[in-house]
Amino acid sequence: MKLTPDAAGTFAIAPTPFHHDGKIDETSIDRLTDFYAEVGCEGVTVLGILGEAPKLDAAEAEAVAVRFVKRAKAMQVIVGVSAPGFATMRALARASMEAGAAGVMIAPPPSLRTDEQITGYFRQAVEAIGDDIPWVLQDYPLTLSVVMTPDVIRRIVMENPSCVMLKHEDWPGLEKITRLREFQKDGSLRPLSILTGNGGLFLDFEMERGADGAMTGYCFPDMLVDVVKLSKAGQRDLAHNLFDAHLPLIRYEQQQGVGLAVRKYVLKKRGIIASSAQRKPGSVLSETAREEVDYLLSRLARIDKRADLELRSSAAE
Amino acid sequence: MKLTPDAAGTFAIAPTPFHHDGKIDETSIDRLTDFYAEVGCEGVTVLGILGEAPKLDAAEAEAVAVRFVKRAKAMQVIVGVSAPGFATMRALARASMEAGAAGVMIAPPPSLRTDEQITGYFRQAVEAIGDDIPWVLQDYPLTLSVVMTPDVIRRIVMENPSCVMLKHEDWPGLEKITRLREFQKDGSLRPLSILTGNGGLFLDFEMERGADGAMTGYCFPDMLVDVVKLSKAGQRDLAHNLFDAHLPLIRYEQQQGVGLAVRKYVLKKRGIIASSAQRKPGSVLSETAREEVDYLLSRLARIDKRADLELRSSAAE
Amino acid sequence: MKLTPDAAGTFAIAPTPFHHDGKIDETSIDRLTDFYAEVGCEGVTVLGILGEAPKLDAAEAEAVAVRFVKRAKAMQVIVGVSAPGFATMRALARASMEAGAAGVMIAPPPSLRTDEQITGYFRQAVEAIGDDIPWVLQDYPLTLSVVMTPDVIRRIVMENPSCVMLKHEDWPGLEKITRLREFQKDGSLRPLSILTGNGGLFLDFEMERGADGAMTGYCFPDMLVDVVKLSKAGQRDLAHNLFDAHLPLIRYEQQQGVGLAVRKYVLKKRGIIASSAQRKPGSVLSETAREEVDYLLSRLARIDKRADLELRSSAAE
Amino acid sequence: MKLTPDAAGTFAIAPTPFHHDGKIDETSIDRLTDFYAEVGCEGVTVLGILGEAPKLDAAEAEAVAVRFVKRAKAMQVIVGVSAPGFATMRALARASMEAGAAGVMIAPPPSLRTDEQITGYFRQAVEAIGDDIPWVLQDYPLTLSVVMTPDVIRRIVMENPSCVMLKHEDWPGLEKITRLREFQKDGSLRPLSILTGNGGLFLDFEMERGADGAMTGYCFPDMLVDVVKLSKAGQRDLAHNLFDAHLPLIRYEQQQGVGLAVRKYVLKKRGIIASSAQRKPGSVLSETAREEVDYLLSRLARIDKRADLELRSSAAE
Repeated sequence: MKLTPDAAGTFAIAPTPFHHDGKIDETSIDRLTDFYAEVGCEGVTVLGILGEAPKLDAAEAEAVAVRFVKRAKAMQVIVGVSAPGFATMRALARASMEAGAAGVMIAPPPSLRTDEQITGYFRQAVEAIGDDIPWVLQDYPLTLSVVMTPDVIRRIVMENPSCVMLKHEDWPGLEKITRLREFQKDGSLRPLSILTGNGGLFLDFEMERGADGAMTGYCFPDMLVDVVKLSKAGQRDLAHNLFDAHLPLIRYEQQQGVGLAVRKYVLKKRGIIASSAQRKPGSVLSETAREEVDYLLSRLARIDKRADLELRSSAAE
Repeated sequence: MKLTPDAAGTFAIAPTPFHHDGKIDETSIDRLTDFYAEVGCEGVTVLGILGEAPKLDAAEAEAVAVRFVKRAKAMQVIVGVSAPGFATMRALARASMEAGAAGVMIAPPPSLRTDEQITGYFRQAVEAIGDDIPWVLQDYPLTLSVVMTPDVIRRIVMENPSCVMLKHEDWPGLEKITRLREFQKDGSLRPLSILTGNGGLFLDFEMERGADGAMTGYCFPDMLVDVVKLSKAGQRDLAHNLFDAHLPLIRYEQQQGVGLAVRKYVLKKRGIIASSAQRKPGSVLSETAREEVDYLLSRLARIDKRADLELRSSAAE
Repeated sequence: MKLTPDAAGTFAIAPTPFHHDGKIDETSIDRLTDFYAEVGCEGVTVLGILGEAPKLDAAEAEAVAVRFVKRAKAMQVIVGVSAPGFATMRALARASMEAGAAGVMIAPPPSLRTDEQITGYFRQAVEAIGDDIPWVLQDYPLTLSVVMTPDVIRRIVMENPSCVMLKHEDWPGLEKITRLREFQKDGSLRPLSILTGNGGLFLDFEMERGADGAMTGYCFPDMLVDVVKLSKAGQRDLAHNLFDAHLPLIRYEQQQGVGLAVRKYVLKKRGIIASSAQRKPGSVLSETAREEVDYLLSRLARIDKRADLELRSSAAE
Repeated sequence: MKLTPDAAGTFAIAPTPFHHDGKIDETSIDRLTDFYAEVGCEGVTVLGILGEAPKLDAAEAEAVAVRFVKRAKAMQVIVGVSAPGFATMRALARASMEAGAAGVMIAPPPSLRTDEQITGYFRQAVEAIGDDIPWVLQDYPLTLSVVMTPDVIRRIVMENPSCVMLKHEDWPGLEKITRLREFQKDGSLRPLSILTGNGGLFLDFEMERGADGAMTGYCFPDMLVDVVKLSKAGQRDLAHNLFDAHLPLIRYEQQQGVGLAVRKYVLKKRGIIASSAQRKPGSVLSETAREEVDYLLSRLARIDKRADLELRSSAAE
């Protein structure tokens, strides 16, 4: 089932699991996919920036994408296809769609500056992959250094009918969501799914501003699922209560470089992936950092039992 | 009293209060200074990046610095003197010290790249201001795009005896604090005060890693004072409890551009500054954003009574 | 006489002459100004990026601007007023105009990214200095990292009637001149003077594309004057012959950091400024570099006698 | 024959020839390779930044590298293997060497800032490709924004015995060559071949500073070969005479974005490649720009007959 502007809910950004020797861990891919389905994710996004995608060669990237797609069953899989050149982007996009992916995600290359360069780039990208592939526009200035105004996003969406979703992770970005939803009210922007990233750091208010859900890699996607649902059900206080309990850990995971290490450490502790190894150049948690994460988990567990990992953890060592 | 490597506690980063017409609001400077003293700050840092320093002309900058210094009495005042050129830096540094400032703060210009360029810059800066002025090294890569390794910081500190403090706001930065403290244990780095910034987002763990205190502009410096004290007293859980209650607001204030508007909005609500106006180019809070901050304050007030601002707020309108 | 869109010819970018001890050399300012007038410059631009403007404090900057203006007589003086904040910009702009400057020049701060941010910045700048001051828009992406499309330049010019000139130094930029002139032909852009910078490296073709003249600091402004005139007179081959003879030196002066040192070295050799000293942080020519420049001058002197500096040089040592 | 620190002379940076439809033009690869051999190049560097390497997918990149290697016979072929991740880098490096390449070239990724990050990156890169592959360190700050001091280059070279050559294109860079040669004189740096890039813009003086030759893509590699030889033979004036005649065109080709279009245009005019097409996103020469290049060629032809392309050109249309 292909991605549409109606997409909503929680799309987990999946890390790529590796063995200690750097080989791809396919068994963990399967378990991770099953886990996302069990906790209620509507989709999975693979080979994103935090999925260590650039560290895979072309054949590996395709193999990882296909493995996730095959296992995902009912869940939609979005494949990150950002690449320095269109030939590579096209090859991965078409292979992923043939395998059954729901859509692809494209980030702008860091060299783009002007509004014209940005809109021109996405026109060419769509020409390259083909206009039959639904795609997600990734708006992530903090990491990519490309700044897209609401106007520019509207132009991209209106010029490219196959663009069906915005991965919103501008920072600050709350007013941007409001502005885009206003564009839709005044009829100048067609329907567009908006899922939010930034590690979930602003998910509580993003939902209230009009986001359709979350697309991020926080190590408790189960919490993302709950907050998205509570918020949509108008349970403002309950949504914030749960969110705030997780915020100290969300915040800790937000540290660039360290974030992925925390994420893999917790997913391993939760028994979902076999190893927290990253491919080089990667980051590792110091013993002090691991103790800090454990402390945050123990504090979180007083409110959210899913964070009570001590037994499982010691068993997993 | 001049700044020394023994400096510790909480140094508030002061915003510069303006009237609605953009004029400097000197009465609010006085009230703000008194407020910082009342809540237990050891010092105040003025004309920092969030103090809208570049928007003042040279005469205004000096006037603001002097006003804070005169009012501060027992508190130490640090004056941000970063400038595109050394002549301007020197002029403000010497005028501030003559007025009674405790020291100055210097950030590296964004163009610096190599270790050599960075260490060379600070050598020249010290030559320019004179080596009799104690100064704070600002390490803020996220905004300044200048990355200093622990080794480079050590070189700067060891080459310049008048450098007595590090304003630490690398992100991630916990391991950096640990590393610098290890340098001191192995004797390769002399005593150095480390106060942490980043809006307080990691203050809980920064204290545990060995920071001497906080230097940041969060709108509840009273909380910073408490967390620093609790942490130093070894009250880990209590420190985290208080910190976590404030974290949703700290996080909200963390949004670049929006942060200063939130800060001034809350300080005005607390009755400390008369107007939340910024000089152009400035940011303003939308009505929705103000409602969000109010909601965060109301949630915080359930735990920290100092956030219960409704009466005062309505009185202040 | 205030600057108008009819401005044309050669505007020399003046270096700021210093004594060896870093003090401003006012006698050399006078001689330099006279020199520019003697060789036929229509104007002088002071306190530009290569004028070491950020190294002056506010009082010095004003003094330098006024000194040039007073001495310039018939020549128009443009004062660079780019500053991190509008208060400083306004102060220098108004003081310069009162002293008799023809206009001011404003460059965008490096942090600007989107078309909206750029056009918004110049609206605010004009509001700050007052809309009665004619100003030059500086378009210099290589150094400032702000990219303005022809469309954005048109928007800025049309929104701000006091913008009368473009200092064009985009690189590559030939098509940009062509595009702007097309805008004028189709009536969508009002009259605008275009003077070109980039050290003169493309002056030959820039004139043919429709530039009104040169605004740059090459150490032989006399050559710029001649090439501008020859080109306007339709003497294509003669213009290129003269230009090509200077190109090896123009190219050598183009090296960032080294450029200003070469420029001051040659101006000193020509007997125009007393010292080639720069304020810190500055660059110095190695002995080998000086020998290379001398060699280039000797080669140039075979074609352009003005480069035959040996006698004057030895006298000046 | 593998690359050694004794490598010298001219290594042409080859463009990748495409057909109008974007397919790789293998016949033109062969003709281009033969041409480089005929004019006296010692080597060819393929898949460099100007070789549109990022626009090829992995299979195409390998095919292009192998095609050049097979055709090159006596000439050494260096393959650019810079990639966002080590898996891709390793795959292309090992495939190229197996096919008979002389070595590979590695540029630092733009995100690197500190000396430690830079030296660490190259250690990991060598670990990834294997320490049996001779490689060229590319130092190109203007495009890559990574600044390496002479000290850092020395550290990289001394830590990685398989690094045998520096592609020098820092700008300004003359003093850097001098400094590295001094390191060798004082024994702190082992033998290292230094070939210079930057489109040849400073080749005249780079040779005099101690470079071993040129590695750049100027459309007259025959001129590079001659200048390198004349300079080594101590024929200073003759080297400069020839160089200066080409400088107006070298300078024109230097325009970023336009450069490759000029290069392919002239190579096509010279009858060497069949089409000047670039893969998207590419640049095209306007009619005016083509006329300008033709004018520069006609002026050059008065001195260097190899630039007299009119007959050949009209035949090739």
